[in-house]
Amino acid sequence: MVRSNALTHVPWVILTLFVVASMTASAQDDMLWNSLDPENTVYLQMQDGTVVIELNPDFAPQTVAHFKRLLEEQFYRGLSFYRVIDGFVAQAGDESDIDDDPATKALKPEFEIDWPLRPTGKNDAEGWKPMSWTPVQTGDLFAPFTGFIDGFPAARDREKSGKAWLTHCPGTVAMARNDSPDSGNTDFYIVIGQAPRYLDRNLTIFGRVVWGMDVVQRIKRGPTLKNGIIEKDLDRSWIKRMRLASSVEKDQRLDVYVADTNSKGFKNMLKDRRNRSHRFFHHKPPKVLDICQVPVPARLEKQDVLRP
Amino acid sequence: MVRSNALTHVPWVILTLFVVASMTASAQDDMLWNSLDPENTVYLQMQDGTVVIELNPDFAPQTVAHFKRLLEEQFYRGLSFYRVIDGFVAQAGDESDIDDDPATKALKPEFEIDWPLRPTGKNDAEGWKPMSWTPVQTGDLFAPFTGFIDGFPAARDREKSGKAWLTHCPGTVAMARNDSPDSGNTDFYIVIGQAPRYLDRNLTIFGRVVWGMDVVQRIKRGPTLKNGIIEKDLDRSWIKRMRLASSVEKDQRLDVYVADTNSKGFKNMLKDRRNRSHRFFHHKPPKVLDICQVPVPARLEKQDVLRP
Repeated sequence: MVRSNALTHVPWVILTLFVVASMTASAQDDMLWNSLDPENTVYLQMQDGTVVIELNPDFAPQTVAHFKRLLEEQFYRGLSFYRVIDGFVAQAGDESDIDDDPATKALKPEFEIDWPLRPTGKNDAEGWKPMSWTPVQTGDLFAPFTGFIDGFPAARDREKSGKAWLTHCPGTVAMARNDSPDSGNTDFYIVIGQAPRYLDRNLTIFGRVVWGMDVVQRIKRGPTLKNGIIEKDLDRSWIKRMRLASSVEKDQRLDVYVADTNSKGFKNMLKDRRNRSHRFFHHKPPKVLDICQVPVPARLEKQDVLRP
Repeated sequence: MVRSNALTHVPWVILTLFVVASMTASAQDDMLWNSLDPENTVYLQMQDGTVVIELNPDFAPQTVAHFKRLLEEQFYRGLSFYRVIDGFVAQAGDESDIDDDPATKALKPEFEIDWPLRPTGKNDAEGWKPMSWTPVQTGDLFAPFTGFIDGFPAARDREKSGKAWLTHCPGTVAMARNDSPDSGNTDFYIVIGQAPRYLDRNLTIFGRVVWGMDVVQRIKRGPTLKNGIIEKDLDRSWIKRMRLASSVEKDQRLDVYVADTNSKGFKNMLKDRRNRSHRFFHHKPPKVLDICQVPVPARLEKQDVLRP
């Protein structure tokens, strides 16, 4: 990710319910914004607009490499979100999940990593630096520790070493699979409802939506009591195109900037949200934070030129 | 609420991610479905369909009575969702929240009740029976106890007596207000994202969406960095009509049935979701439940005759 200080002068607000609470000047100054690496950014073009997904090769190197190959082949072009349950997930692909006739060789699970991640070879070791960890909550309902790792909501089982994994929050992008842990292929899903954290460490999360969740929320739902499967083509939302940002002409790319979750400004935002000192709060809430309820601010500098 | 056993023969499924896991025959038989009381059911008609809201006069008697008067006056007809933040709330009304010129006398807060609720007068006492409490989780991140009270997600502070309140989950309907606790008027909001539980006990929750969250999710979003306020009329979603079910001709009403959260079938569903014994779960999740991640099953028996 490329750091940019140039945007830090733009004022932004903490999202409280009825109050436009500007951050203190120092907090604004301390917020860093990162531009996205076009090699790990996906444009998912739908009827209603473009969704921008950031891939995470640190946590899911094999799955990301596989997904990029599929994008190169234009695998998802003209496929649909065929299984959509409101409040849960929107699942897309060629439905190989259902007909049990996978298009590719099954993927090995990448459910969690050893923490801290160390370089595996000589090439990796050069220029290697440890991942950042911005703590959010100790003793979450589902994990001993939650926090952000370079913009991604994550969790860990121990204070120092142990395992780390990406968490199922709204906007999380993961590979679907059957019962076997290594049965993921091409079908993927996006979380569209209250975080299904019980799925953590059971599926390979390989990305997250950084822009366009409103477009994702417009994906047509299936009948909940029929497991979300949408029978009729007309009732489905279709993928017009899905490709890597680096394959798009530079002047056609979207300039999305994402708040650096390791910057002082973001940490101040966490502090403000934890303490809720505004007079609006008649009843002071417990000083806790739900990792999936902390928005990672994002900004679109250039308009959606990809919009159909 | 009217109990119906007639529907219990219809099979329904637990929503797991990739598995259509039918409940055991006994669990199905034990599921009770309630029809909605037309005196406490609201039809919110939008461009994309109808949203069905169940009001809760037990927790917010004054607010519900006030809201019903507004519906009678057709107050919300032609008003809009003027403040919509993806992942947070969609707020509608006449914008009196913003211009500080309320249309009605401000409402007293109804943030929580004494538990257990007892009859207050002679009239109340006749035929009075205690509220049901279906426990979901002890030691939630935000409350000592969570559970369902007649279909509504709720929380309590003590094991026996103490306070009880409705929780901010996706689909929760509550009155907006300014800083003062008793500044609610006519503007209301619907939670559309990860549960903002830090708002619990700070706002008057008076209903919940029981059908049509997909329609709610299609409400047009505002710019997050501008606190969600949508400037242009064309960029907003408008309320075509909003009225009490009892004011609609009987044959024009929607037949929505909601699972009885106090029935054995529902309790079995909670147990299944807590234990996750299916072989899909390679890593067994902690045996906990997020009150806002438990769907209360609902069924629509008669099609959406109100759809425009």
